[in-house]
Amino acid sequence: MLDIFNEIKEEIACVEKELRNIVRESDPLIKDTSVHLISAGGKRLRPAFCFLGGKFYNYDYKKILPLAVALELIHMASLVHDDVVDSSVTRRNIPTVKAMWGNKISMHLGDYLFGKSLKLIAGYDNLIIPRVLADTSVKMSEGEIQQLSTSKRADQTVRDYFYRIKSKTALLIAASCQLGAVACGAPQSVHLPLRRYGHSIGMAFQITDDILDLVADEAQLGKPIGSDLKQGIVTLPLIYALGHSERRDRLAEILSGEEKSHEEINEACEMIVSCGGVDYSNKIVQRYIGNARKQLKRLPDIPAREILYMVAEFISIRKF
Amino acid sequence: MLDIFNEIKEEIACVEKELRNIVRESDPLIKDTSVHLISAGGKRLRPAFCFLGGKFYNYDYKKILPLAVALELIHMASLVHDDVVDSSVTRRNIPTVKAMWGNKISMHLGDYLFGKSLKLIAGYDNLIIPRVLADTSVKMSEGEIQQLSTSKRADQTVRDYFYRIKSKTALLIAASCQLGAVACGAPQSVHLPLRRYGHSIGMAFQITDDILDLVADEAQLGKPIGSDLKQGIVTLPLIYALGHSERRDRLAEILSGEEKSHEEINEACEMIVSCGGVDYSNKIVQRYIGNARKQLKRLPDIPAREILYMVAEFISIRKF
Repeated sequence: MLDIFNEIKEEIACVEKELRNIVRESDPLIKDTSVHLISAGGKRLRPAFCFLGGKFYNYDYKKILPLAVALELIHMASLVHDDVVDSSVTRRNIPTVKAMWGNKISMHLGDYLFGKSLKLIAGYDNLIIPRVLADTSVKMSEGEIQQLSTSKRADQTVRDYFYRIKSKTALLIAASCQLGAVACGAPQSVHLPLRRYGHSIGMAFQITDDILDLVADEAQLGKPIGSDLKQGIVTLPLIYALGHSERRDRLAEILSGEEKSHEEINEACEMIVSCGGVDYSNKIVQRYIGNARKQLKRLPDIPAREILYMVAEFISIRKF
Repeated sequence: MLDIFNEIKEEIACVEKELRNIVRESDPLIKDTSVHLISAGGKRLRPAFCFLGGKFYNYDYKKILPLAVALELIHMASLVHDDVVDSSVTRRNIPTVKAMWGNKISMHLGDYLFGKSLKLIAGYDNLIIPRVLADTSVKMSEGEIQQLSTSKRADQTVRDYFYRIKSKTALLIAASCQLGAVACGAPQSVHLPLRRYGHSIGMAFQITDDILDLVADEAQLGKPIGSDLKQGIVTLPLIYALGHSERRDRLAEILSGEEKSHEEINEACEMIVSCGGVDYSNKIVQRYIGNARKQLKRLPDIPAREILYMVAEFISIRKF
């Protein structure tokens, strides 16, 4: 958990406990793989947003807890499925479920965790929650499929990229910020600014992720530098470089290659950075952070709002 | 569609149309893969059960249609995911999505179709529907994971097998029979016998599937004989043979082998049939069919009930 979430540390501890409880009675294989996944940790960003959102209206952590757990399960399920297709061997410096147990288990474990989230969501008699999450899950798959269908293609626009990361990442974070408040019975005037805040934060978060893939410290990041590029995933700094680098043809050539050597990946990363692709992307991050702050101004000035300001600050300067 | 579903042929035609509508506006890759999948056909058993169940109480096909489509989408999603892990190349004599587009697309397409089913389900303000389906989807994944974790193991009981096929197959058919009536507002006295009928039919259906894997005509079945055995999936006829065949050690040896030759598969199939594994399994099918009939007696004598009797008859004698 991040230090800035100190105010809700007890709630996040409940989420950790519930995540473990959910798989306790399962088949040993499900239990082992799930516990591995839960123990691998993560920032628990989505549950945190969910609780913080709830603080803006008749806060009742018991009403939010199942939803917060469900959001983390949806996120975990998507990570396990991504690892299958990404051929990732480590995530957060820890071997992936796929690396330890194989593709078959990873696929069904993802489905299982997602199913568990549906059970929690089905416990709510509020209709907004299942509708927002059903819509989000369709978009998440669409984003992933678009990422596959546009893989290695140098002819993508910034617009294509924004649409994809909105689907892949931002919508679930937007839902997390919105639905904690919805679960507490908040009106639109509260849960819509929270949703918009989450959307901007989610966009900034994913662009930062894509920047870190190029310039982070490998040990801190927990995976090799240039992983996206190696897989042919076209991110914002790369799109900028494909439009602005003097050596754009060489960059497109490396991108389109079947097998990319370590040297080629390094060469491409250097080209992207030197032509300003990372600086440009950082500016876009700042623009989204600005939008996120604007949304917060529409909400009451309570301690949770201060934390959400700090999250915006953290997203824009994070190194891992 | 099966001829016995003639009474609801217009409803099934609406399901076909809706399935195509749902993917019409998608990314071209989603559209191509989905249309391939929808065109490959299938018996549309789950939607049919859903409409027939609804006939027992204030039938309104508009109330049932989204649910019927959702059930077929859940089934399709599970098939696409199964093809990923089964390494199947054809299903119903048609190349699988995996064979044509690869594992990555298949996995995300399954998630996408499942997400689309959630959107349809979220349109109901009835709480039983999402709860039953969430529970069913968890069990379906559990069944698949158990199938993987018990693969190639000769020490399985009939009880393990029943638990697995209930999770994998019977619960979704039970839900299909039950929830059409629930969507029309039927009381428990109507939807519970329908659920139990569906459970028995689902068990009989899966055991018949497992028998056909050993003795069907390959061309009619649409896939090679002995596919389950080749993958190490332990089915009822095999469990019987592992307990009763004089050559059980040889059978266990073939089952545990990494790569199984065509000759070994044929040898094993012959052993299973000759020791009575198929006859035994057929008796169990008849027992489930008997249970299904018993449940129907609790329901009003309407034409839909006659069709459900005929479905029970069909399941027990089907050859594909």
